[in-house]
Amino acid sequence: MSTRSLGIDIGGTQLRAALVDPHGRVLSRDRRPTPADDPGLLVRTLLEVIRSAWERTGERVPVGVGIAGLVTVDGTVRYGPNIGIRDLPLATLLGEELDAEVVVANDASVAALGEQRAGAGVDHADLVLVTIGTGVGGGVVIGGRLLTGATGFGGELGHVIVNEGGRPCPCGNRGCVEAYASGSAIGALARDRLVDPMTMSRLRGLGRVAGPEVTAAAQDGDEVAIEVLEEVGHWLGVALASMVNVLDPELILLGGGAAAAAAPWMLEPARRTMTQRLVGSAWREAPDITLAVLGDDAGVVGAGLLALGAATVGGSGTA
Amino acid sequence: MSTRSLGIDIGGTQLRAALVDPHGRVLSRDRRPTPADDPGLLVRTLLEVIRSAWERTGERVPVGVGIAGLVTVDGTVRYGPNIGIRDLPLATLLGEELDAEVVVANDASVAALGEQRAGAGVDHADLVLVTIGTGVGGGVVIGGRLLTGATGFGGELGHVIVNEGGRPCPCGNRGCVEAYASGSAIGALARDRLVDPMTMSRLRGLGRVAGPEVTAAAQDGDEVAIEVLEEVGHWLGVALASMVNVLDPELILLGGGAAAAAAPWMLEPARRTMTQRLVGSAWREAPDITLAVLGDDAGVVGAGLLALGAATVGGSGTA
Repeated sequence: MSTRSLGIDIGGTQLRAALVDPHGRVLSRDRRPTPADDPGLLVRTLLEVIRSAWERTGERVPVGVGIAGLVTVDGTVRYGPNIGIRDLPLATLLGEELDAEVVVANDASVAALGEQRAGAGVDHADLVLVTIGTGVGGGVVIGGRLLTGATGFGGELGHVIVNEGGRPCPCGNRGCVEAYASGSAIGALARDRLVDPMTMSRLRGLGRVAGPEVTAAAQDGDEVAIEVLEEVGHWLGVALASMVNVLDPELILLGGGAAAAAAPWMLEPARRTMTQRLVGSAWREAPDITLAVLGDDAGVVGAGLLALGAATVGGSGTA
Repeated sequence: MSTRSLGIDIGGTQLRAALVDPHGRVLSRDRRPTPADDPGLLVRTLLEVIRSAWERTGERVPVGVGIAGLVTVDGTVRYGPNIGIRDLPLATLLGEELDAEVVVANDASVAALGEQRAGAGVDHADLVLVTIGTGVGGGVVIGGRLLTGATGFGGELGHVIVNEGGRPCPCGNRGCVEAYASGSAIGALARDRLVDPMTMSRLRGLGRVAGPEVTAAAQDGDEVAIEVLEEVGHWLGVALASMVNVLDPELILLGGGAAAAAAPWMLEPARRTMTQRLVGSAWREAPDITLAVLGDDAGVVGAGLLALGAATVGGSGTA
């Protein structure tokens, strides 16, 4: 059994790799642009990254991959819109080429495992990670193991419905929390408020109003921007209440760039709304909501730890 | 290790007990009225039921208890409104009196385990049971084990929020699925429609319009009743979509009297709405939604199997 493993995190723009130890410490890194819309090149790039790591370590260390998209329990990427791939049996292709088992899972899910094993969630066996970037993703760890679900699509926390029939979501439905609490949604909610010509805000007249502009304006004390981020926190709290009523985790982590930027205004409303809506709120302590700490390393660390085995539950990971 | 166990299910009116084998088959039964609003009498009744079973079997078989209410992972009933108890350390009290370990959990959760081990869910390691009676309860089985959550309040599926700010729920919040899809909600939704004097329905003029009257009228072809049950199915589907996006179970079971009665009109809209709202609905099969089969036995069977051990995940049941 190797004492190290290689974790790879394939995002829409960057492909990161890291050699990690069993405690989730990063020993070395590799990074390249993600080849988009070219599954063949993606696979060749991955093979190169893996073989180069094996050469450097002098050992065929186990490999785990997290990728942005819907990934089945047998490691097929059914749909990865950011990377432009569809129905790519990534685990099988890599496994055959390398003659080694490669585990492949959703990027936000492996990030949840990374945070639980080596980040903000150590000492907590049951946690939820909600990642807030352009979209909203997530992962669920139960009893120290990653919930993959029966098909592998478990932990799609961005599509918990908070307001049936409400704002349109990129997934094609309406009212998902991603439509209210993503970086894109922050921009959209702010632009909606500016439609009223009586709304006074520093955001008015900016060429572009997206998440970063809103948090920057909030930093400057802009009331419209602050109200938007509080509203985002409220909707996030609604989704978290549903998640906690189902899963009852010890801890909720928020990851992703937009979460960190919006936290000063978003976190307290999220806590308040969630706590009010929990079953038996008078007879329980609500789980803490806190920021993830591993940043861009969460994915590679989680993917590396996943490769060390016995880390999933549900589907093929069934006990 | 005993090959039999005693399962007890404490509901608002009935206290049922059954001796079960490891396959969840019921070997014998006992039943009495639940002593309400009297924790002391409840405990004495339970001791009597257990000792009598031990005498009959000539063996101190393991004991599991499911009870309607919020139950912590250490078996304290924090709040059991139907039985009129609060902060009753039931597992500890029974354990000390009997000098034996007694496991205590939520009634709908143990019913989920019962259905998974010996009912409609055999051959499925990952399932969700939603029970629809006066209220909406539920239980989650992952990898063949019952999800208790960190505090024990996991699987409170009736309080998944489907419509933030919507109909008032008995829990004190608004917009929970229990406010749209319980037996009580069926009656309330029908009464709302009758407020319009132009609404033609057989329900008009009945002294009482509750769940059973609505399903009876639907049976007679009453369009208003049918529309109400379809609406209930729609809202149930919204909640199921959120649950599936989080948990990705193989199977969804509906239990409880109201579910069985309303199924002919409710099930198809629930399936349709849920399927539409799943992440990646084009790239996956939606889990089946089907009726539970154990009826009133689900609780005693699940409680009995829970007593045979190693059946929970999350909280103290952590792997």
